[in-house]
Amino acid sequence: MLVENFRPGVMDRLGLGPDVLRADNPRLIYCAISGFGQDGPLADRPAHDQIVQGLSGVMSVTGDATSAPLRVGYPMADTVGGLTAAMMICAALNAPERGAVIDVSMLDSVLATMGWVVSNHLIGGVAPQTNGNETPTSAPSGTLQCADGPINIAANKDDQWEALARHLGRADLLADPAFATREDRKANRLRLRAELETVLTTRPAEEWARALNPLGVPAGAVMTVPEILAHPQVAGRDFIAWFEDVPGVGRGIEVVRVGAMVDGRRPSVAAPPPELGQDGDAILKALGYDADDIAQMRKEGVT
Amino acid sequence: MLVENFRPGVMDRLGLGPDVLRADNPRLIYCAISGFGQDGPLADRPAHDQIVQGLSGVMSVTGDATSAPLRVGYPMADTVGGLTAAMMICAALNAPERGAVIDVSMLDSVLATMGWVVSNHLIGGVAPQTNGNETPTSAPSGTLQCADGPINIAANKDDQWEALARHLGRADLLADPAFATREDRKANRLRLRAELETVLTTRPAEEWARALNPLGVPAGAVMTVPEILAHPQVAGRDFIAWFEDVPGVGRGIEVVRVGAMVDGRRPSVAAPPPELGQDGDAILKALGYDADDIAQMRKEGVT
Repeated sequence: MLVENFRPGVMDRLGLGPDVLRADNPRLIYCAISGFGQDGPLADRPAHDQIVQGLSGVMSVTGDATSAPLRVGYPMADTVGGLTAAMMICAALNAPERGAVIDVSMLDSVLATMGWVVSNHLIGGVAPQTNGNETPTSAPSGTLQCADGPINIAANKDDQWEALARHLGRADLLADPAFATREDRKANRLRLRAELETVLTTRPAEEWARALNPLGVPAGAVMTVPEILAHPQVAGRDFIAWFEDVPGVGRGIEVVRVGAMVDGRRPSVAAPPPELGQDGDAILKALGYDADDIAQMRKEGVT
Repeated sequence: MLVENFRPGVMDRLGLGPDVLRADNPRLIYCAISGFGQDGPLADRPAHDQIVQGLSGVMSVTGDATSAPLRVGYPMADTVGGLTAAMMICAALNAPERGAVIDVSMLDSVLATMGWVVSNHLIGGVAPQTNGNETPTSAPSGTLQCADGPINIAANKDDQWEALARHLGRADLLADPAFATREDRKANRLRLRAELETVLTTRPAEEWARALNPLGVPAGAVMTVPEILAHPQVAGRDFIAWFEDVPGVGRGIEVVRVGAMVDGRRPSVAAPPPELGQDGDAILKALGYDADDIAQMRKEGVT
């Protein structure tokens, strides 16, 4: 298996393109990951995560009317591209005698994860909009303020709305014609938010979440990355691997594992990230080169 | 293969949990997709996409100092969870005699795609920050204003910065000590942005992108979803499938395919989304039930 992330054409120029390599080994699974795919009018453009986020429409729908377009605050185009590659390689391994040339496009990979933003347009002809943190199809559904910070609440159904209002001690709102139906609540969502926040701001978000979820009202705090990584839901399910005394770091480090368990165990990560060229000598030796050959190659700048 | 998306415990209550089904068929690949995984303190909470976005830290790093926390404007936790499930199922199919019980957590799946936001914290002890549309490690690198809207530019290296300044007719900036080194440009990024935008705002973003990329300066317009779906890079690479006369819709519809090509072809989508229960009768007949049985089951509310 070979995975490369060059711009289209570079591997061919090095004499290592898929045609050459597969002529030698028809069972090779060759996976190229590029910004836009191996052909097409944008194929030759250099791709950075943020540029793919911009071209894909991700930025256009993130934020609200005043803050959009905004990028997602981590390199999601890089990693969704990588996850798509991992899926395609796992699929190709099911027919190992056949081999495969896999051409992953970060742009296409991101578009394939955009769900109803894409399908509402393609199928319903509905243009995507910026909605900030509000869920436009329902209310109260979005991000509201608590004593210590924001909470997400998705009281999308009538009974969830009723349970929320009663738990907050605001059963009076259930009698208000402005909030009688889902359509009424959507039309008056700003007023509704203000009413609910008068109560929500009296206690911390996590306390509300702990009380509301058992009542059937989906709710969750807005956490920071350090907070969730230390949370027992993540730390207690073996999501984070620990490696002692890592070469190039000189101490132990933690890395995350895959987002699923198999037969009750988290698939392990075999090794920490290597140093640059760490395994080069061992690989060359396995290919039959001796120490003199390797020294010569290094002198010539081949490795 | 079985894929389910209930809250933990529901399939057991229905008598269809993995232990029961695998006792009957040890080769079964059983894949459960839930918000937080099958156990742990949050397992019983209902999960909506936005709630997972909030808990995972995604919202905490999206936006800038005034607009964060913001959700990503499409259901990324739903779809990254689904993509992780697809990868794990493809992997499990490589050992079909073994079967597998796969427990996908949307929360873990999202955390696994957060790249340096997570690793900077875990390995470097660096707390994640909100950076809006700026790339904090470089300048000029971020979203800048053109005549018709914004453009992403990633002039991260010295030679890219020089090519950009020269192409914009602002070689004078190269002589300004405020912009001499990458550290200088980072320290003065707001002033640098203003200088560059005096020129960038004279032409549309796509025109700049078309000129800058061949000079080695990564650049791309910020597009809307309809714009990119109609772009020849996407439409010309067979990313969108067309189905005629779809049941329940009464007309043709378009759906997106997977974000990769295999051996020069886009893996096809076999069928459009079905209507609810569309295949129920055919499946029951294949299991040996006749029309009377099915009518009786329907009467009893079993199907």
